[in-house]
Amino acid sequence: MNEFAAAARDGLTPDALESVLREIGLSRYHNRHPLHHKMTSGQLSKGQLQAWALNRYCYQAVIPRKDAMILSHAEDPAFRAEWRKRIEDHDGDDGWNGGIARWLKLATGLGLDRDFVASQRGALPATRFAVGAYLSFCTDRSLLEAVASSLTELFSPVIISERVPAMLARYDYVTEDILEYFKPRPVQASRDADYALAYVRQHADTPEKQQAVIDALVFKCDLLWAMLDALEQAYGDHGHIPPGAFDPKQP
Amino acid sequence: MNEFAAAARDGLTPDALESVLREIGLSRYHNRHPLHHKMTSGQLSKGQLQAWALNRYCYQAVIPRKDAMILSHAEDPAFRAEWRKRIEDHDGDDGWNGGIARWLKLATGLGLDRDFVASQRGALPATRFAVGAYLSFCTDRSLLEAVASSLTELFSPVIISERVPAMLARYDYVTEDILEYFKPRPVQASRDADYALAYVRQHADTPEKQQAVIDALVFKCDLLWAMLDALEQAYGDHGHIPPGAFDPKQP
Repeated sequence: MNEFAAAARDGLTPDALESVLREIGLSRYHNRHPLHHKMTSGQLSKGQLQAWALNRYCYQAVIPRKDAMILSHAEDPAFRAEWRKRIEDHDGDDGWNGGIARWLKLATGLGLDRDFVASQRGALPATRFAVGAYLSFCTDRSLLEAVASSLTELFSPVIISERVPAMLARYDYVTEDILEYFKPRPVQASRDADYALAYVRQHADTPEKQQAVIDALVFKCDLLWAMLDALEQAYGDHGHIPPGAFDPKQP
Repeated sequence: MNEFAAAARDGLTPDALESVLREIGLSRYHNRHPLHHKMTSGQLSKGQLQAWALNRYCYQAVIPRKDAMILSHAEDPAFRAEWRKRIEDHDGDDGWNGGIARWLKLATGLGLDRDFVASQRGALPATRFAVGAYLSFCTDRSLLEAVASSLTELFSPVIISERVPAMLARYDYVTEDILEYFKPRPVQASRDADYALAYVRQHADTPEKQQAVIDALVFKCDLLWAMLDALEQAYGDHGHIPPGAFDPKQP
């Protein structure tokens, strides 16, 4: 079922491995999801954007924890010093002036209550399961696989370049100020993805490890996709909200 | 957002705790999900039933593993001897003549390939994340919470009594033979649920433990609900199948 299931069977050069990884992004990254197109073409209601921001917060909140898990598996101090930057980016100096705080600014800028978002109480169970699967993956799998699962960042500058101008143009209540989260992300993501890609190119030196790297990136793309699927199922035009989850009509 | 979030604040008698748990089932068990009603009213296509059976297999397959995890946390030999029956029910004498094998019989009876189903390759990522969350819950939480999360079995005789006669009546290709999985389940589930309920009534003896028990059952209901949500999003009339997942039109 998965066109990448045997991609590394005969072994790949680092360049060929990188090509497969970039193909995965082209076919499976969540900028291909219908919900992303609805967002960038101005078709979402404010309630649907709120649901997106509120659920995505759960993902943002787990990023430094999964990166800490990766640090805990890394024996090389130089690797740890580089990877640590990701945690600094998200937590900032005091925990609340980095990427997570800027995501909260986006959520509150869309009209949500800060503490409610941070509590994650209104998030979809499916969001929690996906985010939990990411933390479990980085806990249970090899360092190489956990690093490879971060490679969706190779594609994030593209989705941000699609999302930000479109949101500013299509939704009159969306301002540059509340989208501040995205401002440093393309530079940070490119730096991080370059490092992770070089690591993967160097360390995936057997067909088995190459396949594990490929599977890790497919897993991560599936996860981001499933998060948008869950939003569509709950808040889409034919959706129904599961019991207990955020309801834009009963804020 | 969750009407049961503070239900045990002032402490509950065992009977009052049981009442709250039964209320959770009434409002949140997945026999309330629209997909269950579609199934029992004959509205599902064969492909949609296949997708249900194939994804639900992942859940069946993890049950003995989560029960083994519960055994591993139990210090009381009498508890282990009782709880062990669940593993025996699902695995049978040789691994392949218990509940899991009977679920495969259902899936193949609906026209699916046995090895394909058992490989879980075509399952939705969202199914995998939900099932993984169940195993993680039983790994990370207290024995009491893991036991409480099994209490959805209190409600399973009801859903089975709704599902089986309706499937036989509404789908001409569904026979008693392929629904053999469900035959022993009401008796097994009642026995298991009675034991788990008595355990919970006895051991949840503080407001904190009672709330943890309530939250565990809500978590489990949310999980079963999310599995049906994922099926609806992928295979419903307005659905779209995520990349790589089972496609009834391309078997």
